[in-house]
Amino acid sequence: MFDYRIESTEGSARAGTFTTPHGEVPTPAFMPVGTQGTVKGLIPEEVAALGARMVLANTYHLYLRPGHELVRTLGGLHAFMRWDGPILTDSGGFQVFSLAGIREVRDDGVVFKSHLDGSAHTFTPESVMDVQRALGADVVMAFDECAPGGAGRTHAQEANERTLRWLARCRARFLEIEREDGAAGAQALFPVLQGNVFDDLRREHAHAVGGMGDWPGYGIGGLSVGESKDDMWRVLEVLDSELPVGRPRYLMGVGYPGDLLEAVARGCDLFDCVAPTRNARHGTAWTTEEGQVNLKVARFRDDTRPIDPGCDCYACARYDRAYVRHLVVAGEWLAVRLVSIHNLRFLVRLAQEARTRIAGGTFETWRNDWLERYRSAEGYDSTATLHANEGEPR
Amino acid sequence: MFDYRIESTEGSARAGTFTTPHGEVPTPAFMPVGTQGTVKGLIPEEVAALGARMVLANTYHLYLRPGHELVRTLGGLHAFMRWDGPILTDSGGFQVFSLAGIREVRDDGVVFKSHLDGSAHTFTPESVMDVQRALGADVVMAFDECAPGGAGRTHAQEANERTLRWLARCRARFLEIEREDGAAGAQALFPVLQGNVFDDLRREHAHAVGGMGDWPGYGIGGLSVGESKDDMWRVLEVLDSELPVGRPRYLMGVGYPGDLLEAVARGCDLFDCVAPTRNARHGTAWTTEEGQVNLKVARFRDDTRPIDPGCDCYACARYDRAYVRHLVVAGEWLAVRLVSIHNLRFLVRLAQEARTRIAGGTFETWRNDWLERYRSAEGYDSTATLHANEGEPR
Repeated sequence: MFDYRIESTEGSARAGTFTTPHGEVPTPAFMPVGTQGTVKGLIPEEVAALGARMVLANTYHLYLRPGHELVRTLGGLHAFMRWDGPILTDSGGFQVFSLAGIREVRDDGVVFKSHLDGSAHTFTPESVMDVQRALGADVVMAFDECAPGGAGRTHAQEANERTLRWLARCRARFLEIEREDGAAGAQALFPVLQGNVFDDLRREHAHAVGGMGDWPGYGIGGLSVGESKDDMWRVLEVLDSELPVGRPRYLMGVGYPGDLLEAVARGCDLFDCVAPTRNARHGTAWTTEEGQVNLKVARFRDDTRPIDPGCDCYACARYDRAYVRHLVVAGEWLAVRLVSIHNLRFLVRLAQEARTRIAGGTFETWRNDWLERYRSAEGYDSTATLHANEGEPR
Repeated sequence: MFDYRIESTEGSARAGTFTTPHGEVPTPAFMPVGTQGTVKGLIPEEVAALGARMVLANTYHLYLRPGHELVRTLGGLHAFMRWDGPILTDSGGFQVFSLAGIREVRDDGVVFKSHLDGSAHTFTPESVMDVQRALGADVVMAFDECAPGGAGRTHAQEANERTLRWLARCRARFLEIEREDGAAGAQALFPVLQGNVFDDLRREHAHAVGGMGDWPGYGIGGLSVGESKDDMWRVLEVLDSELPVGRPRYLMGVGYPGDLLEAVARGCDLFDCVAPTRNARHGTAWTTEEGQVNLKVARFRDDTRPIDPGCDCYACARYDRAYVRHLVVAGEWLAVRLVSIHNLRFLVRLAQEARTRIAGGTFETWRNDWLERYRSAEGYDSTATLHANEGEPR
């Protein structure tokens, strides 16, 4: 029920189709984040209307609230959140290692404290598979240890080794559940590749994971956690040469518009990031000609152009900056909704256009032009992507 | 361009059609509140889809932010907020007397402090007409002094007298602007009837206002500000016998579902209240069979019924209580959006059904049955309507 078909390539960039039990995802593709079972503030019809085909939800959050067993009882995450397209759930590893107060990392799992009420919980490779089965996403991620950005070589190496041991246990439990359920093929398990910014550790880990068998896809973790852009691009190039060509590669937690294009150029296919909706909450929008703009600024006070004159989203088709600025300044929630729709459409469409350009063999030229224009634009904030995952669950 | 046609009556209840330059409003009708130029969180398509024909916006808020002159420059409030149906703006009187820090009430107007930055501003009967002309609503309200709930007779009497003097000045300025603009008939000016809970003052004021000429409609102010329900119903009965039959009566700031029906029975036609969206922010919904319910309660945890099984709104057509409860508990904004849609639809539809029942001559029976069922339902909070206007601009 899962398949990945590459239809065209240009350099390392690939245009393909990822088939899941809940439909096809043309890649490259940006997946909106629905942390708690909702893409913040939007209804599924809106998410679909902006061209998104697959969404992400967070295991850590749904495990704590409303609880995975309740979601299972209610028919699984697709039924619960009324999204009938493909869903990917992360493993919760990123959250318990970065957001939750960790009490103890043991070889059998992680004891952590809920950010909601301080209660103690344990995630093990096995339990995380169980939780994700209850949620019922199409793609489930293996439980990994994500060493923080800036971690030393020893820590990164230990995290790799633990991630590898856990991966074997994730797979064993995943296969066991499939047998118990009699529903093989309903979910695909992606391993998460770690190794921080150490090229040899990245290579070694990718090699070891690949040596465990043929995975239906790969998650690239441990990036966009504070490292430099040069480090990120170099690691992606290392992985591009290590990973099998015919499997989708999901770059976790990336990214901002420029990062998405850079990563597509380095062979990545799937992306997620909370920046579109988080930026919307701060009144920050992406535009083709002006880069990233803060809609609060006084010059938009009587600006009758849409947020991004080149955009085809609902917000841009219907409203002008003067009104959206008023809503942002007045703290009206409609501002967040409109700018979320715009920012999400901006990334979804950017990935769609990358796909078209790859098919046409003009990706490289287009990407360079696009990045040059975007980055040189007034308002471009070169530091905006450095800490994309800070302050909010990704 | 304004007209009010009564199509049927039952007792004091009336079913009619209020015609405005931006379309017809079948009455009784509930008008959603768009304080700052947006019905909180909703797009105009959603407001229209729930059956609302006319919306309200607040002069005080729009005067302060983004400023009425900017709204005028941008084509007026209809264009600004992308709502092409009828709009009513209040005068700002309620806000400056209840929300803003008042520095001084003088015969020529009120000096008040902005709740945003403490800056000093003056509203006069004339300036309020100017501001509302710039905003460009269909119906504009006269600048009135709303004596607070619990005010004594002397205060109420003084407020009535001042309101009357100001009304004359409002009308003079209103007519002057019409001549200057050469656009007579674009707006209708409604006086606001005051007099607190004193029947004779109410009668006297209504009589004096009526004596000033033929108004296109009447605002009933100074109710739902803390007085008892018995006082409110009695005052409405007094006014019903004083006001001309053939003009729409707008009961300002009312109301909750039960209040709306009681007021329709006493001859009121138009209603507005922030309760639908404010309650939504607290996770509180209205239901036909269960009265007012708090969606956070544990019994809804796995409830697969819609918020209100009898409702035809988007939220009820698409989602179950289990999911909406999760969103409420998780603090997700989608909860506010869905419950706002439901609560607004609940009131809009209640007014629509009242209209149908009046036309069919079954209003009285239906109203009694409806109120009995609603009030006896588990969860009905009999105090919920006492202070409908506290804590938020109405």
